[in-house]
This record gives sequence, structure tokens and C-alpha cells, in this order.
Amino acid sequence: MPIFDQISIYGPGLLGASIAMAIREREISKKIKIWARRAETLEICREKAWCDYVTDDTHSGYQGSELIVLCTPVENIITLIEQILPKTESGVLITDVGSVKNDICASADCFQNLQCGDFVGAHPMAGSDKSGLNHASSNLFDDRACFVTPLKHTQTSSVDKVTNFWTSLGMSIQLESPEKHDWIVAQTSHLPHFISSSLARYLESTKLECSSLGGAGLRDSTRIAGGDPELWAQIMRSNQENLVEALKLWLKSTEEALGFLNDGKWEELKAFLEEGAIFRKNL
Amino acid sequence: MPIFDQISIYGPGLLGASIAMAIREREISKKIKIWARRAETLEICREKAWCDYVTDDTHSGYQGSELIVLCTPVENIITLIEQILPKTESGVLITDVGSVKNDICASADCFQNLQCGDFVGAHPMAGSDKSGLNHASSNLFDDRACFVTPLKHTQTSSVDKVTNFWTSLGMSIQLESPEKHDWIVAQTSHLPHFISSSLARYLESTKLECSSLGGAGLRDSTRIAGGDPELWAQIMRSNQENLVEALKLWLKSTEEALGFLNDGKWEELKAFLEEGAIFRKNL
Repeated sequence: MPIFDQISIYGPGLLGASIAMAIREREISKKIKIWARRAETLEICREKAWCDYVTDDTHSGYQGSELIVLCTPVENIITLIEQILPKTESGVLITDVGSVKNDICASADCFQNLQCGDFVGAHPMAGSDKSGLNHASSNLFDDRACFVTPLKHTQTSSVDKVTNFWTSLGMSIQLESPEKHDWIVAQTSHLPHFISSSLARYLESTKLECSSLGGAGLRDSTRIAGGDPELWAQIMRSNQENLVEALKLWLKSTEEALGFLNDGKWEELKAFLEEGAIFRKNL
Repeated sequence: MPIFDQISIYGPGLLGASIAMAIREREISKKIKIWARRAETLEICREKAWCDYVTDDTHSGYQGSELIVLCTPVENIITLIEQILPKTESGVLITDVGSVKNDICASADCFQNLQCGDFVGAHPMAGSDKSGLNHASSNLFDDRACFVTPLKHTQTSSVDKVTNFWTSLGMSIQLESPEKHDWIVAQTSHLPHFISSSLARYLESTKLECSSLGGAGLRDSTRIAGGDPELWAQIMRSNQENLVEALKLWLKSTEEALGFLNDGKWEELKAFLEEGAIFRKNL
């Protein structure tokens, strides 16, 4: 039994298209409407089994839908919330996939006193190093974690419905405030990305022939540095304060370990490696 | 046609046992003799198709062999060279798998004026995050790079024979001086390991529930931090000077990038991420 009569998806990229595919496969909604900016994208979507309507008009995009899922890059999500949320009818829900939540949820919060729909932010922890509609998959979300980040005054019924939606895609839910979410992902996602990029960029500057001389360890530890620089610069910008703090704490810890190596404190160096190995074992 | 009548392997761990398996499978030597310290290990080896003789006696270990491959941890390799090399007959060759070459090759160099066998250091770039004989595989070396690190005065015929041996296991050879080798691996192997451990150790200190909240990027970038702390402390100790220099250069580059983020220099931050992505694309 479908939960929704109609869902709108804004931005059919890797995540947006995968969500549409999962909705269709799991029969979560009777109808799916896709909004995209580019005519070519709309043409491609029109042919897909997971797409019933297409439009490039921001306001037609949500007409008749009970749930709107914003899947564009972070900065565009904020613009769309400002354009759409105040125009929606009461009862309509908006959620999103933005990987930084504070600014997004704050932009929605401006409309809390209006008689309109409700916004409940989300961050499905799913993705791939490949991007775009062509790499979409209906099982991208299976058994993955999804943050749902209500504000204090968000209606419980709205939180429940949005939580149900992400659960119905196969995800397990972690409820956090937008602030706490952004602090967590600064540590577990944005910091690793920054570090991987810093290693890759340093090695690029050494002009060494790493393609023949590098082992599997080098490949693993620089994999995420291959992500889209435009997208990641935007994510880091949106989480600037938390990421700067995480980087400073991590740098302090790294300089301490460099001191062990430099000063020949071998027992301390081994303890440093052991603590890292314990983290990895528990991951 | 076998190249050798008999090869001795000291230390049948992941690398030593894999070498023995590959020698047998590719028929590189008629006989294979295994030296190990522990009685249990000798008992296990005795049953293997890739083992003809076993011994725990350092000097019986190389009797009758034309090639001796030292596969113990770095510090023990030096001890074995000092015990074995001066006693070998002229024409006998010793090679090894140590991942740091300067100290090892220097220890062999002390015997250059004796009438004895010859040592040509090597570092096969193959491995696994699993260690030990049970994870050995005859195709561990297929299409992987192998450093061979002769000294200036090492006889060309010795270098050729050792190079032939590693080539016969399926590897492609990179000839470098021991000094250059150690500088290269400081950048491409020891630095990534140190960084991965520093990230893992920092995250361990945050007490975050990373097992549920971490994505694939976190898993990739901390994978090598799971390596054996004892072994890696020893490797880092053996390459202390090069690794300290690499860490200082990389830290300087990382602090510059942190400055871009902290000061809101978004174009510079994007350029930093782009340089990292270029390295990764060329890997």
C-alpha cells in the first residue's frame, strides 16, 4: 500500500534519481513528479519508469504532492526552500538530502509562523564516488544510516512522517539537532575528506611516479580526494566553523605524534599506532 | 625449467609463504628450504606442498641454496645478514623483502671485501591488511612493483640474477639506490600510514559512534590504520629521518589549506581540492 499519493523530487542526480527508483520499486508513492533545470535532464527523466511527470517550473514542481524531496546541491536547497516552503499548503512536508544541515534548517525556520507546510531536514548517508543520474540505483539506501534533524519546535507528526519516508527506503534513522549533526559530520566525513585531499595534493607536489610505485594503502587513503572539488568546497564552506575546529584538534594530535617520531619516543609512537588500530577495529 | 636448484626462505609469514607458493607454482626452483624460529611454524610448513626441508638452525637454513630470501621483520633481517652473509660461499645470493632499505643494505655492505656471497636488497610492493602464513597466496606478486636496491659497487651479475628472481614471480622491477628508495616509500607508504593512523586515533578520542555514522569514505581513509602497530612502529623507526621530513612538508601544505578554509578563501580552497583530485585521477 503506497504511503503517499504523490512525491516531488527536485534534482534527479545520483541521490534524487536513486530515491525515485526506490520509491517506485517499493511502491511508496502512486505518482512521482521530477523537477530539473536542464531540458536534456527532463527529456531523459521523461523516459524513465520511475517518473510520471516532469517540469522545469519551480512552482508546478510541487503542485499536488504531499512530500517534496530536495536533492540539489546545498546552496540550491536553501534557495528552493525559500521559494517553495511559504507557498505550500498546511500538511505538505519538505525534506532534503543536504550533507550540512544548520544553514538549511535555519532557512526553513524563518517560515515557522506562517500557515504553510513543514520542513524536516535529512541527510541520507549514502552515495558513491560516481555522480549523476546514470549511476543511480534503487538499493543505494539499503541498510544505510540517515540523519533526520528536526528543530525543537518542529511538529512531532511531521518528524514521524519524514522519518517513515526514509525508513521506507530501507534506512535506519539517527535523530540529531542540525547543530549536532554538523559537528558529527565535520569529524566523520568532512575531516577525512580534507585530510585525504591534503595527502593527495602534497604527493602531487612531489612529482613522484605514484601510479607505479604506490600500493593499495595509498589508493585507499586518497580515494575520497577524487570527489567533485566544486561540491566539496561548497560542503566545507557550509560547515566552516566545525571543520576548522576539527582540523585544529586533529592537527594538534598529529603534531604530538610527529614529536614521538622526531624525538625517538618509540613506546609512545607504538601507543599512537595502537590507538588508531583500535578505532579501525571497532569501525 | 627451474632457474635455481634450491632456494631458502627465512620467515614463512604472509610474504615468505607466498614467495614459496609462487616459486613452487611457477617452478622457479627444484627445492625449497624453510627456516623459522618457532616449532609450531615448522610443523605447519612441513606439511605444505611448497616446502621440502624445514629447520630452525640459522646456518643449516642456507646450506645447499643458491638464493636466500630473508622475509622476517626489518630488524631481524639485519641480524640474519650479519650471521649468514659472511659465511656464504662466493656465488650465493641473498635478497630480502624489507620495506626500508638503507640500514639493511648498509649492514650487508660491511662484508663487501670478504670472499663470500652477495646481497641485493629488494622490496616487493605486495601485501595485505591480513598477516601470517594462513593468508599467503601464490599470486600475491602478480603485476605488482618490486624495488631492487643495489649499491654502487654491487656486481652487475648479482643484480641481474636477483632482478630475474623477482621478475619470475610476476613483478615489474624498479631499480633505485637504497637512499632514494627510502625517500620514495616515506612519501608513498609511510606518510599515508601515519596520516591514516592520526585520523583514526583522533576520531577514537572523540568517542563518536563512528561504526553506525561513518560512511565509505571514512572506512577507506582509515583502512591502513588497522595494520600491525608493532611492525609499523619498527618501519617508521627505520625510516625516521625521511618520514619526519615528509610529515613536516605535508603539515605545512595542510596548514596552508586550513588557512584557506579559516579565512574564507573559497577559490583557493577549491584549487586545493582540485589538485588533490588530479593526483587521484592519475593514480
